[in-house]
Amino acid sequence: MPEKINRQMVIAGIPEGRLHISHYKMREAAVPQPGAGQVLVRTLLISMDPVSRTRITGKPGGLQIGDVMPSSGLAQVVASKHPDFTEGQVVECAPGWQDYSVHGSDALTGIDRLGPLTHHLSVYGVSGLTGYFGMTEAGMPKPGETVLVSAAGGAVGHIAGQVAKLRGARVVGIVSSPEKARWLTETLGYDAAIDRRAGPVGAAIKQACPEGVDLYFDNVGGEVLETALTRMKDHGRIVICGYASQYDTQTPETATRGVPSVVLYKRLRIDGYVVMDYYGKKQAARKQMAEWMKAGKLQVAIDLLDGLERAPEGFAGLFNGENRGKRMIKVADEV
Amino acid sequence: MPEKINRQMVIAGIPEGRLHISHYKMREAAVPQPGAGQVLVRTLLISMDPVSRTRITGKPGGLQIGDVMPSSGLAQVVASKHPDFTEGQVVECAPGWQDYSVHGSDALTGIDRLGPLTHHLSVYGVSGLTGYFGMTEAGMPKPGETVLVSAAGGAVGHIAGQVAKLRGARVVGIVSSPEKARWLTETLGYDAAIDRRAGPVGAAIKQACPEGVDLYFDNVGGEVLETALTRMKDHGRIVICGYASQYDTQTPETATRGVPSVVLYKRLRIDGYVVMDYYGKKQAARKQMAEWMKAGKLQVAIDLLDGLERAPEGFAGLFNGENRGKRMIKVADEV
Repeated sequence: MPEKINRQMVIAGIPEGRLHISHYKMREAAVPQPGAGQVLVRTLLISMDPVSRTRITGKPGGLQIGDVMPSSGLAQVVASKHPDFTEGQVVECAPGWQDYSVHGSDALTGIDRLGPLTHHLSVYGVSGLTGYFGMTEAGMPKPGETVLVSAAGGAVGHIAGQVAKLRGARVVGIVSSPEKARWLTETLGYDAAIDRRAGPVGAAIKQACPEGVDLYFDNVGGEVLETALTRMKDHGRIVICGYASQYDTQTPETATRGVPSVVLYKRLRIDGYVVMDYYGKKQAARKQMAEWMKAGKLQVAIDLLDGLERAPEGFAGLFNGENRGKRMIKVADEV
Repeated sequence: MPEKINRQMVIAGIPEGRLHISHYKMREAAVPQPGAGQVLVRTLLISMDPVSRTRITGKPGGLQIGDVMPSSGLAQVVASKHPDFTEGQVVECAPGWQDYSVHGSDALTGIDRLGPLTHHLSVYGVSGLTGYFGMTEAGMPKPGETVLVSAAGGAVGHIAGQVAKLRGARVVGIVSSPEKARWLTETLGYDAAIDRRAGPVGAAIKQACPEGVDLYFDNVGGEVLETALTRMKDHGRIVICGYASQYDTQTPETATRGVPSVVLYKRLRIDGYVVMDYYGKKQAARKQMAEWMKAGKLQVAIDLLDGLERAPEGFAGLFNGENRGKRMIKVADEV
């Protein structure tokens, strides 16, 4: 049953540079009531998605002070005034950083339970599907090819790298700490890992990929993308999945040196990749990943923080590369 | 028979900014003699290729003061000490900006005469094949698609645009003068043309391509590329064929805003394209273009300047967008 209070984590300030926990504050509001055709849900898990940072601009159209931080997640139906949804049902939706929210039926999707709820927000959710289709539909590495993945220990990257391995590629990951580098090679089965803070990335890529890179799956943009361009084989492919290095700033640098010059000389192919374009195949993707997990061939890393109050630190920490795998916040247990 | 003098146009200065005729001077040298296995040729036509500008850097590995300006072209054999080449034969080679040069047999290619020699340096040469394969192999527009071509009145662009039309696309060209814009629509059959000096290019593309661009065939890079990115349809394709806007400077800006951000949101595909990758099909390409020309479906523009002494002005003028079609210099008549 709904409590009397709806805790909401709202924007308290617009960062001039990097996001900090002081840019959020907790507010208490009344629990909203569903109108005709609407559904009241209680948030269970909220997803930490780096790209959400780009909405905190303070500009018209962006988030403003006092706005509840938006987020996708999983929630449980508390009260339904729509025939398709029943009390207790778990749904995918965009609850935001708060306990309770009201949605129209179009904004809710029931889930077919395939495992723990955390799997539905990771391997079976947007980030897992992004990693999966990023290799099976966008990058499509062939056996023996060298695949480089940036943010390789992240929510998308750790799946993408393993899927590339399962397709027979040689996989090299770029991460932001020596611990994550070891995790990639010792636990996830990467062939090599680069700690991008340990020294020049270009030299490290050259050492790890002496014949060059066939496929670069890029989640970060910025200097790592520029450096990777110069280490591609002729006719290499780059899949642009994100550019997280430019999210946590009010002055993103989305100009990439080497485009068009290196792209031309090396005859590179660059593809912008958005997972939703492949959602028609998502059930088959989930089935395949479930089989791989059952067979011990795919490791799923969940980085779970407990409590809505931890959302700001959990979110800001994404941009320090703190997370291993998919970071999410547990707001409430399923009842 | 060889004259006593070999006129050579050499680098006289390294430009700090834009190239000027004062960066060249004429020198007279002795006619070189072929050694065993070598061939002496007399230059007939030299090709004006914008990308050659990037070799005039003054840096190690670049051209130095006193060097003969390198260039591809057509030449006639004067004396041969190799059994595959005979006196009087016309060959493709890299004679440079001079009357006479000596080559090994690997550096000479005989031509199968398909028309006037100027055609062999234009429509049947590198620039014509670049325009042809740029559409038939790289861009591959479908009927009804909107194709945007930059430097659309240039050696490559004027062929590329017409080939796109012949494939049933709607073709819009970007040029640098109102006269060339009219030439595109009135003579070459472009559906629309944009004079990039007449006003904001983005607004002009929007007007000419109200539903967006399916395929952008880019020869210029720089701001025009950045602007075109924003006018692409979702899933649009960009073929990078050159970036001439950054050739005539010692400080090229080869960082493109919108990469990776716009590429990601619009799910664009960018391909670096180099014509040599398709040379296996060049005889078929020449045959097809010959048929189109015979049927009046393909117009070939030759921009011929007469005399080696005009090479510097002809070359520098490329970067003002002076040329219509393929610019070349006639050094000598075939004998």
